Amino acid sequence: MNPKRCAACKYLRRRCPKDCIFSPYFPPSDPDKFACIHRIYGAGNVSKMLQQLPVQTRAEAVESLSFEAKCRVDDPVYGCVGIISLLQTQIQNTQALLAKTQAEIAVAQNKQNQ
Amino acid sequence: MNPKRCAACKYLRRRCPKDCIFSPYFPPSDPDKFACIHRIYGAGNVSKMLQQLPVQTRAEAVESLSFEAKCRVDDPVYGCVGIISLLQTQIQNTQALLAKTQAEIAVAQNKQNQ
Repeated sequence: MNPKRCAACKYLRRRCPKDCIFSPYFPPSDPDKFACIHRIYGAGNVSKMLQQLPVQTRAEAVESLSFEAKCRVDDPVYGCVGIISLLQTQIQNTQALLAKTQAEIAVAQNKQNQ
Repeated sequence: MNPKRCAACKYLRRRCPKDCIFSPYFPPSDPDKFACIHRIYGAGNVSKMLQQLPVQTRAEAVESLSFEAKCRVDDPVYGCVGIISLLQTQIQNTQALLAKTQAEIAVAQNKQNQ
């Protein structure tokens, strides 16, 4: 066995080829990253998605896929859509507070101008 | 062929069983919903994820998976993580504007009290 196999090939118990599509993004030091992505998307789907992308965008794609997979493992019902809902609520609350504060400043300026 | 097959079984060209795990969530009227989810996760993974969830949470899980799959088809590099980044920027901008406005109100009130 090649001790330098990437985390994906180690997980899939296969030889890590020289042109392995996973190897640049799944170092053997972080086995959980591939395990998580494999559990949610399957190795075949991830490989297919990466192959369809230009090489210079693949690292970012792996990061966003890993993030989504980790969210889905942590929250199997809502995944990272739960985070989107939370952020949208936070924006609505901050916008409401902003509107209230802007109204207050208008009142204060009016009084000052009287 | 059964004309009442769900969109998933139609896509997979198989008989739609009475206890089909997809059928409650993939009506034949919306074939794209399953096509999208199948392209990103694969039918087997989705079926496995749904089986591990209590029945009353499956509809919400299908909605969030569909949303993530659609985002990934539209933006193969960032998927819905792109939306999270946008929302985080929007929160930071709104919070900065709120801080500025709150500072302005403090200045106006100070002047008023002089």
